[in-house]
Amino acid sequence: MHNRPVVLCIGGHDPTGGAGIQADIETVNALDARAVSLITTLTAQDTRNATAAWPVSAAALARQFDTLVDDIRPAAAKIGLLGGTDQIAVLAERIEGLRCPVVIDPVLAAGGGFQLDPGGLGGAICRQLLPLAALATPNRIEARRLAANDDADAAAGMLLGHGVGAVLLTGADEANDATVRNRLYRPGLPTREYDWPLLPQRYHGSGCTLASACAALLARGMTLDAAVAEAQAFTWSALESAEPVGKGQWLPRRKA
Amino acid sequence: MHNRPVVLCIGGHDPTGGAGIQADIETVNALDARAVSLITTLTAQDTRNATAAWPVSAAALARQFDTLVDDIRPAAAKIGLLGGTDQIAVLAERIEGLRCPVVIDPVLAAGGGFQLDPGGLGGAICRQLLPLAALATPNRIEARRLAANDDADAAAGMLLGHGVGAVLLTGADEANDATVRNRLYRPGLPTREYDWPLLPQRYHGSGCTLASACAALLARGMTLDAAVAEAQAFTWSALESAEPVGKGQWLPRRKA
Repeated sequence: MHNRPVVLCIGGHDPTGGAGIQADIETVNALDARAVSLITTLTAQDTRNATAAWPVSAAALARQFDTLVDDIRPAAAKIGLLGGTDQIAVLAERIEGLRCPVVIDPVLAAGGGFQLDPGGLGGAICRQLLPLAALATPNRIEARRLAANDDADAAAGMLLGHGVGAVLLTGADEANDATVRNRLYRPGLPTREYDWPLLPQRYHGSGCTLASACAALLARGMTLDAAVAEAQAFTWSALESAEPVGKGQWLPRRKA
Repeated sequence: MHNRPVVLCIGGHDPTGGAGIQADIETVNALDARAVSLITTLTAQDTRNATAAWPVSAAALARQFDTLVDDIRPAAAKIGLLGGTDQIAVLAERIEGLRCPVVIDPVLAAGGGFQLDPGGLGGAICRQLLPLAALATPNRIEARRLAANDDADAAAGMLLGHGVGAVLLTGADEANDATVRNRLYRPGLPTREYDWPLLPQRYHGSGCTLASACAALLARGMTLDAAVAEAQAFTWSALESAEPVGKGQWLPRRKA
């Protein structure tokens, strides 16, 4: 039996499992890769919203990172929620040495609106992490906030300007009646558009699922184009078979 | 599509994913249930040993528990590594109200020997959690330490005396050349023995896999006897297809 490639998942912990590193672990597993994980922030959360967050100290994160990566070499990394700018400094210093594709899902708020940015996250992500990343997967709200620009297309261009290899801008937050449109921006190439049928519920963890699916497929050696297309199909399917587990948003079902 | 039953997994986080809540999540998923999770302790860990642990405050654990369980009702719970006696008090108070089967895997040390008991864990588990549990799954070393009795059979009997519904005593730590023998002890019933062919490697996370498999199968409505038998088969299969991911113990591959 072949050894599966390893994806290093760095992000928050969501007890519902809809989002955060549980979403990453389930996605990576379903896509025939193996997850290892580092937690940046613990949260109190239900299917409606987050209500509290406890960032991990940057020193503890650094020690966990070094212990893990000295033993296990990832073939790709995915970075989700971050607990503070000191964590970003720790990660930026280490991520470059991994020499593998990095996918960044710039989470700044919970789906229910709870602010998860203790201050300065957006700027530090742009300056310190985007230059190291192969792909960023913001939704339109996140892209506008990161780029401080109300036009989503222009915002994607500004993120590319920070040095990220590509930007996959997701559109579920601004879907029309029937369609969600995602767009892939790459320097010097035409923008690619992907239309997906709008699903009837609200879902928790679609962004984490998409970004970690991209990372898992890149870890398996796919091209960026192929990974981005297949990751969207995987995510749509996980949402389409989602479950109403609590009283709020439905939770994706991430199966192979 | 049916909704999968929910298993509440409470335990430590192991960045390698071999053990801890990642093991639980992967196992529960593979056995067609859904995991939700609460983290008791963060660790720095590789495939050889743990080297540091950061327990979560009992207040943060309580808040996460209450937020989650107010929204999502688990059909079973699994408790692994605990970060201190204050956490045990928080959990004992809440677990009873769940009115679902609880499986306890009493972890006191990492596979590599690092002590994960900050003091008093064993006694508090026996007094406060065993009376609430349907099943405990210690290995022989843990059972002896919990019961302060060098005879493993007598130790299992003492654990039953604390009120747990059954004790599945695992024997990989004392396997002979060809066979691992596990034993199921229940009050007033004959001891059941299960023999499994000894596998050639050392593995990280077999105990977490076994306990969370029991919880997932109980959540699906299986009898204790059936759950204990099928959980052992699942675990053996996950170990038999394990991967040499790092430089130490192999990591189970938990697939449906």
